[in-house]
Amino acid sequence: MTEPNNRLRIIPLGGLEQIGMNMTALEYGDSIIVVDCGLAFPDDDMLGVDMVIPDVTYLIENIDKVKGFFITHGHEDHIGALPYVLQKVPVTVYGMKLTMAIIEGKLAEHPVPKGVKRKIVTYGQTITAGDFRVEFIRVNHSIVDAAALAIFTPVGTIIHSGDFKIDYTPVFGEPADLGRFAELGKKGVLALLCESTNIFKEGFTHSEQWVGKTLDMLFAEHKNSRIIVSTFASNVSRVQQIINTAARYGKKVVVDGRSMVNIITAAIDLGYINMPDGCLISIDELKNYPKEQTVLITTGSQGETMASLARMAANIHRKIKIEPGDTIILSSTPIPGNEKAVAKVINDLSLLGAKVAFQDTHVSGHACREEIKLLYALTKPKYSIPIHGEFRHRREHAQMVEELGIPHENIFVLQSGDVLEMDGETAELADPVTAGGLMVDGLGIGDIGNVVLHDRQTLSQHGIVIISVVMEKGTDQVLAGPELLSRGFVYIRENEELVEEARDVAIDSLVSCQERHITDRNRIKNIIRDDLNDFLWRRMKRSPVIMPVIMDV
Amino acid sequence: MTEPNNRLRIIPLGGLEQIGMNMTALEYGDSIIVVDCGLAFPDDDMLGVDMVIPDVTYLIENIDKVKGFFITHGHEDHIGALPYVLQKVPVTVYGMKLTMAIIEGKLAEHPVPKGVKRKIVTYGQTITAGDFRVEFIRVNHSIVDAAALAIFTPVGTIIHSGDFKIDYTPVFGEPADLGRFAELGKKGVLALLCESTNIFKEGFTHSEQWVGKTLDMLFAEHKNSRIIVSTFASNVSRVQQIINTAARYGKKVVVDGRSMVNIITAAIDLGYINMPDGCLISIDELKNYPKEQTVLITTGSQGETMASLARMAANIHRKIKIEPGDTIILSSTPIPGNEKAVAKVINDLSLLGAKVAFQDTHVSGHACREEIKLLYALTKPKYSIPIHGEFRHRREHAQMVEELGIPHENIFVLQSGDVLEMDGETAELADPVTAGGLMVDGLGIGDIGNVVLHDRQTLSQHGIVIISVVMEKGTDQVLAGPELLSRGFVYIRENEELVEEARDVAIDSLVSCQERHITDRNRIKNIIRDDLNDFLWRRMKRSPVIMPVIMDV
Repeated sequence: MTEPNNRLRIIPLGGLEQIGMNMTALEYGDSIIVVDCGLAFPDDDMLGVDMVIPDVTYLIENIDKVKGFFITHGHEDHIGALPYVLQKVPVTVYGMKLTMAIIEGKLAEHPVPKGVKRKIVTYGQTITAGDFRVEFIRVNHSIVDAAALAIFTPVGTIIHSGDFKIDYTPVFGEPADLGRFAELGKKGVLALLCESTNIFKEGFTHSEQWVGKTLDMLFAEHKNSRIIVSTFASNVSRVQQIINTAARYGKKVVVDGRSMVNIITAAIDLGYINMPDGCLISIDELKNYPKEQTVLITTGSQGETMASLARMAANIHRKIKIEPGDTIILSSTPIPGNEKAVAKVINDLSLLGAKVAFQDTHVSGHACREEIKLLYALTKPKYSIPIHGEFRHRREHAQMVEELGIPHENIFVLQSGDVLEMDGETAELADPVTAGGLMVDGLGIGDIGNVVLHDRQTLSQHGIVIISVVMEKGTDQVLAGPELLSRGFVYIRENEELVEEARDVAIDSLVSCQERHITDRNRIKNIIRDDLNDFLWRRMKRSPVIMPVIMDV
Repeated sequence: MTEPNNRLRIIPLGGLEQIGMNMTALEYGDSIIVVDCGLAFPDDDMLGVDMVIPDVTYLIENIDKVKGFFITHGHEDHIGALPYVLQKVPVTVYGMKLTMAIIEGKLAEHPVPKGVKRKIVTYGQTITAGDFRVEFIRVNHSIVDAAALAIFTPVGTIIHSGDFKIDYTPVFGEPADLGRFAELGKKGVLALLCESTNIFKEGFTHSEQWVGKTLDMLFAEHKNSRIIVSTFASNVSRVQQIINTAARYGKKVVVDGRSMVNIITAAIDLGYINMPDGCLISIDELKNYPKEQTVLITTGSQGETMASLARMAANIHRKIKIEPGDTIILSSTPIPGNEKAVAKVINDLSLLGAKVAFQDTHVSGHACREEIKLLYALTKPKYSIPIHGEFRHRREHAQMVEELGIPHENIFVLQSGDVLEMDGETAELADPVTAGGLMVDGLGIGDIGNVVLHDRQTLSQHGIVIISVVMEKGTDQVLAGPELLSRGFVYIRENEELVEEARDVAIDSLVSCQERHITDRNRIKNIIRDDLNDFLWRRMKRSPVIMPVIMDV
């Protein structure tokens, strides 16, 4: 590892151990650039955690080198950590028009330090940032303005795919710029960082237009019905297709759900959605039209409990009441973990008499196996670094790349914090840097650790029992109590006998402490805790948190 | 509703609002029989709940009428509530050989009242129970010895499908007895209660033998690898196919996981598994064979954290260590809700170097749409009562049946507790009976209600803060405290400043009570709770449970 300053360092800071939290730093000499700054949604066992953001200690330690964030597209797993990270790393953010519009929306709610510049770029434009030059290349994805990045470094060209698919017939804009990838491939690409989401899916992802055909069919089938279509707010092309179909059937369109309204408004302003004259009406105008002449576009396709569709399903939406005859189209596929929530919404809607359609009304935004192969065939990278995916995805990706002819030793399945150093000729791992996830709970970032999560887990299973005693300072004399309180354990009013027995156990514990002349408060607490634990397990096979409180007077 | 004693009453007591908890009572005159007695696994929001069982108040109130439980097959959602329900309704249990063997295993762990008889029946056998006669009819399913029931009542024949599929080439036994269904159909069937699980799946379910072919292919591909196959313990035919393939490749078989060992031992004893001589070895004999000559059959295909496969994945299995080169086959599909747990196990196994195969190694045990239609075509029922499935499944089932020509008014999409009365000519709903789910937590049945669950939910999100104060009885004088303790809130040692501030808030609350001469303990508690709530939300946007404890001396 001689002359480290002449080496490019590729440092993934997230996006490898789980879906989400995408972030990769590239370092050369005195320059660092960062690709994406995403959040991850909490795992099921991260109770009470709102989101997880990448630990950027390494960037903070090298703040003078950091030249900017280069954002590939406007999804949460690529931009969601910006409001938090920009507080500590206040540097310029670069992105395409819609990407930056969505980021501005977030930063309006979470103000960042003054002086953090935001720069809108266009496809084909190259930004110089220290020793790097970064070019945005057009790709297709489930959001418009998605980009891959060509990063020109002193040791060679790195391509970062972002999230991508190849759509030969996109609803908005052009197909991915295959020509530019080929051109870069001819000139020589040092490394390709390519996403792995759909690596297990054979073939090609359908074009977004495929959904349009299904929508047409469903609208034809339910001509005499009010239609409610739920999808991801950020999928502007999907929304465009719903509008197109609605217009073809002479229906008026209402947009509902906070994020849906925000993004569609922005997209119309930017000219990314073409709304036919007179097509859009407000939710309050709905009553002026026969039901079958209206279409609602809403959020909530993932079963999110507070989203518009779930509120309709639970019959607590302030303005929309589901009625027999309504047709609801879920234009999405449940993200793993959301299946039960989506099923609940479907059942609730069905119980209200609505017909729910959810098949063939979604296509993925991610490249399937053959598209990933195509990107390799065009760019012909020397090194492959599979990104975006759990370990199993990235290992499968690595195996596929080996079949494409890239030598095993040129493929790197990395972990967050790994540092891959390259000088153009060789590539090897250097000492890793700090990386990981910081849990965000309310305003706290990283103040929740394993101890707190473990306590929440135990509390969630069997609740807590509190035994409070007042004792005379320095003696073994009990002045008041023990009294027993609980939360999440049993309904005390209906279990008075049990509470009485438990109190007797605590009294016995205190008596036994007196007999043994034990006055140390911690010892007494431990004895009460153990005795009650035994009693409750024997009596009911439950293990609540037991918390003795001794107050000295 | 004249002459109610001449009417058949069909009373579903579970299995309609969710997957699981299957139970249906049939009543005529002084006779009640019960089909199945299953449990449901808790929903995600039933924190700490082990399982949910049907509320059998109606059976207890009519205990003198109840003639027996007729069990269609040995899956938990059809037998799992028996150990609890037999305590209150101690009547005879009827079932096929393997079904009863599995039930005996459960009753050995949860003793039931003496005098509860168990009777093994065979296909084609008819049992007389009060005014009913019940015949067990052969069907195929993902467990052997599965049966549908023909229930002959004074007003006509009722068919209950149980869980079924039609497998023309089953691994064990014969195809479903289509001839018997046809015969009953010719004689006249009053009502068909048919399961709905796969109503949204077009066509026919694959034969179990289809999996055998994939297994053969995978074994061929991984000839030089140790193979570990994980599947449901109760799927005896799947296990048989793994054994057959292992034997063909000259590999020794080890069985691991408590339930897998139990059921395979029972199945071998009953002659339901044919184990070639010398094929089965114990886990301790593994070391005597080259790795590539061994196959392990284990539990844990649903990602269950304590099952054999998850313990291997976490590297905490006492006897098996996953090594690079091992091939793991997940012969199952994740049940909705288990997707993330299964993905975790796959990632962990991949990280240890194993190759994980999980495609095309499972077939469903449930009839798809065309098979359900076939059952209707054979039995030609006058009435249709879709069972086993969420509302959306059963409504879809009802719509399909209408297309088959059964009049709308003869199709009943019921709720648990509904009572459908029939006299052979007409059918109508009578007053409903008590029904619902009872949550089981440890030894407690039904003692957890919404208040307790709500507390567990709140505790799980932000933990609990306890403020204890000792006061002089009857006055507003504070003798000790306030002291602040917490669990699952923040890590107190790293947040001393916050704790100090919170304590100051509680002191201010107490001072303000003194100034206002408030001595009522509940009022003081409420004031402390409100003040601390405000403070914590303002300071950290979190809402832990706040529990003031005032002890009087």
